[in-house]
Amino acid sequence: MTYCVAVIVDEGISFCSDSRTSSGVDQINTYTKMFRFGTDGNRQFVFLAAGNLATTQAVIDRISKDIAKQTEVNLNTVADVNEAADYVGQISVEQQNKTGGGAAYEASFILGGQVIGNPPQLTLIYPQGNHIRTSHQTPFLQIGESKYGKPILDRIITCQTDLHTAALCSLVSMDSTMRSNLTVGPPIDIQLYQADSLMPGEYYHLAEDSEYLKTINRIWNERLVESFASLPPLVNSLAVTQ
Amino acid sequence: MTYCVAVIVDEGISFCSDSRTSSGVDQINTYTKMFRFGTDGNRQFVFLAAGNLATTQAVIDRISKDIAKQTEVNLNTVADVNEAADYVGQISVEQQNKTGGGAAYEASFILGGQVIGNPPQLTLIYPQGNHIRTSHQTPFLQIGESKYGKPILDRIITCQTDLHTAALCSLVSMDSTMRSNLTVGPPIDIQLYQADSLMPGEYYHLAEDSEYLKTINRIWNERLVESFASLPPLVNSLAVTQ
Repeated sequence: MTYCVAVIVDEGISFCSDSRTSSGVDQINTYTKMFRFGTDGNRQFVFLAAGNLATTQAVIDRISKDIAKQTEVNLNTVADVNEAADYVGQISVEQQNKTGGGAAYEASFILGGQVIGNPPQLTLIYPQGNHIRTSHQTPFLQIGESKYGKPILDRIITCQTDLHTAALCSLVSMDSTMRSNLTVGPPIDIQLYQADSLMPGEYYHLAEDSEYLKTINRIWNERLVESFASLPPLVNSLAVTQ
Repeated sequence: MTYCVAVIVDEGISFCSDSRTSSGVDQINTYTKMFRFGTDGNRQFVFLAAGNLATTQAVIDRISKDIAKQTEVNLNTVADVNEAADYVGQISVEQQNKTGGGAAYEASFILGGQVIGNPPQLTLIYPQGNHIRTSHQTPFLQIGESKYGKPILDRIITCQTDLHTAALCSLVSMDSTMRSNLTVGPPIDIQLYQADSLMPGEYYHLAEDSEYLKTINRIWNERLVESFASLPPLVNSLAVTQ
């Protein structure tokens, strides 16, 4: 499986993805699930991918080829991120149908970025090719194993959260997911897109032996254990007589 | 949906369940998902139920009727919790088949307790009627919306955790689930079975206006926000040059 999360805040967009792929427990491999396209000063796009690896690779390959071939519609011609999502949704459906379709070949994408003259945008492209945006109340999108890491995002993230804090929260969300689900694992990729920069921005690659990743993992675990120990105990004076 | 979690520790078994049922957002109701059977001094059983409400109600009704009718196999005649799980699994499959079967009519149960002469046991009964036990490494079982609340259980619970702490951890796990999923909600039922007591044990019913529930919710949120704020920030000196 996979876990990817992207957060859109006033300052920009944070993208975070794991790198573990599995088709059965004896076929666990490492592939990045983050892909970046753009023309500096004009447009930037970042994709996070979940689902069938053959489908996601075929979709990313096709996006690259369309740019190289300068087809009528490609990432360099679309008017904004929503149009890009329409285009990628259509490619994804085509690729899935090549294999006969079905749940096993499905793929989901998070696509975020900015085209000059438009605000930064973040979308989630479903396997069916349609897509949704974030809301002001929930300025993040998740694909893959999304439930383990949702509570901390719900507690911390608002549109006013600064970009590095949004990325750190994504990393804590990723840490909880890795702790509870073996099919999600490092290296962790993080890309920070600064609103209106139209430049790629900072990129972090945190491998399994990353001191920072290990520190976050250790301190977060210690803090949670301490926090739990500080809760008022369940005492039997609260019990109901049956 | 539903969230139920049970933890078996050296001291006994903690059972915890929410009470929200939904079939569509305009049909949200409150039903307990915890059911207790037993003969004091001889045997105690606690069920937690998830899935189709008609199926789970039919199964619990049938269990009660079999006891009343003193059928050959009922909860008062089974040799241990595993035999009880076989019996309940069979009833569950029968009830699902009455409606023609299919995922919409499925139900899962957590069944724990003790029969005199045997150790306390905890099992998860699948919709297919088969069942699994806990392991020493993972001494808890979950049904329903289990992922949101799994990380804290993974971090805290061991077989040596005391029974009230196991229950408190279940409550925090429930709190995270309720925070992130609207289909899980109070009242929260907690039952604590003390190993070898063969008596029901303490029962807690925490309604939406429970001061204790509100306190746990508030303090846990505060502690998490503080813990998050204390983490070493993601600084751009860690970024990779692209």
